[in-house]
Amino acid sequence: MKKIETQYKTRVEFYDLDPMNVVWHGNYVKYLEAARCDFLEKIGCTYDDIKDAGYAYPVAKMEMKFVTPCVFMQNLVVKTQLESLEPSLNFKYTILDEKTGAKLFSAKTMQICVEIETRKTVYSVPDVLKKRVENYES
Amino acid sequence: MKKIETQYKTRVEFYDLDPMNVVWHGNYVKYLEAARCDFLEKIGCTYDDIKDAGYAYPVAKMEMKFVTPCVFMQNLVVKTQLESLEPSLNFKYTILDEKTGAKLFSAKTMQICVEIETRKTVYSVPDVLKKRVENYES
Amino acid sequence: MKKIETQYKTRVEFYDLDPMNVVWHGNYVKYLEAARCDFLEKIGCTYDDIKDAGYAYPVAKMEMKFVTPCVFMQNLVVKTQLESLEPSLNFKYTILDEKTGAKLFSAKTMQICVEIETRKTVYSVPDVLKKRVENYES
Amino acid sequence: MKKIETQYKTRVEFYDLDPMNVVWHGNYVKYLEAARCDFLEKIGCTYDDIKDAGYAYPVAKMEMKFVTPCVFMQNLVVKTQLESLEPSLNFKYTILDEKTGAKLFSAKTMQICVEIETRKTVYSVPDVLKKRVENYES
Repeated sequence: MKKIETQYKTRVEFYDLDPMNVVWHGNYVKYLEAARCDFLEKIGCTYDDIKDAGYAYPVAKMEMKFVTPCVFMQNLVVKTQLESLEPSLNFKYTILDEKTGAKLFSAKTMQICVEIETRKTVYSVPDVLKKRVENYES
Repeated sequence: MKKIETQYKTRVEFYDLDPMNVVWHGNYVKYLEAARCDFLEKIGCTYDDIKDAGYAYPVAKMEMKFVTPCVFMQNLVVKTQLESLEPSLNFKYTILDEKTGAKLFSAKTMQICVEIETRKTVYSVPDVLKKRVENYES
Repeated sequence: MKKIETQYKTRVEFYDLDPMNVVWHGNYVKYLEAARCDFLEKIGCTYDDIKDAGYAYPVAKMEMKFVTPCVFMQNLVVKTQLESLEPSLNFKYTILDEKTGAKLFSAKTMQICVEIETRKTVYSVPDVLKKRVENYES
Repeated sequence: MKKIETQYKTRVEFYDLDPMNVVWHGNYVKYLEAARCDFLEKIGCTYDDIKDAGYAYPVAKMEMKFVTPCVFMQNLVVKTQLESLEPSLNFKYTILDEKTGAKLFSAKTMQICVEIETRKTVYSVPDVLKKRVENYES
């Protein structure tokens, strides 16, 4: 399987901060989701494409490591790497400071494919996603 | 129409705070929604009951006044008062400090009834909600 | 006073959606705050500049009108217009669909200037902000 | 070290739901934080007590496993168990359905003690927290 990696840029907003004046740890989940949606869009297969094909991909597991706190108006790069398509959709993420390249955060997610109609788990990747990964040219 | 008022209690969590160490202003919308769902549950007509009857009640307008900032672990009382059922569902809210009774915040919301299937606005209140209001004994 | 208007672009993320598959109404507060921070940055006076000068600008009042629900991956333009600097900092906002220009939402906010050290309300605009507004060339 | 376990009850609110009509996965981080604050309060040592003693406890690592999706108005019990105090503060969590006892979710967090003034990591647990754990009677 191809090791595709995409980069998603975002910026820390005021509403993401906590009383320590850094990004509240739970808000990184949003950065990861935005980066993952961006990944899927770049390979040509959005959440809606997957849904239209009859599948959903709920997150079944995630791990996060907080290295250096992110601060207000900091420009971030989220690197998103596809780790596996089967039996589950696994991504690896790194968040870097856009200017310095310093590593701020890393994470992994595991998503399970579910057939929406039957609510059954599917262990092989649906064609709608598989073909897009195979055909992707970075 | 009856002027029903209910009280909903909640508490300020750490994740609701901003860098000024007070509740971030946008998080009051959550307190209002929780209080409104509690109101509807107390009169015996939940969001799901309304949905099962074929209607949704999106918020069309809201106004908020921030009087005194709420702080970590503060116990709050949200008073929710039904203002009108037709042509729109209007509520008035006051948030008080549970201990001192001091007024911290006030708000108003206006919700429009929409028939889910046709997506058309409905200016009369659906029976599922009307009857519950009429029969409510505080 | 100059009627400065800026434009901030954003996009609807999955985590902003509710069970009706549209942006949850409380999340518009985030779009407004991001647009307001962008406005202040564009005129050359960020939240941090204001804080360093000893002032904070808590939101004291806001009004929101929800015209048309926003959907997943929709590209939005938030137009932010400065309405007044004194005795309070007032902004007007309109959210448009980037492609069609259709109006989706409008809002107003009123912010009160507070001297951080004394916690007293200040009814005249601090120089740090006043000068930036006067000198702004769009 | 004592294996203290506390139980925190909460309920799924509408604003926590996503378009699949279940709790959005990132919102579990809020349930964990609320449960952890409740744990600390029950043993008699709140976040503010720790802060007043000069320390902060940022989350350095977390893992989450999503077993069964939580739905609107579902009553949840979050079991929070202290796993270690040194060299880091580790908790284990399980979320159960209050009525059926079914396991819905599990997680682990690791928090590092930081001296606020120097921003240095502290590998021994501050007395303010240590004594409360030792003296706790469930």
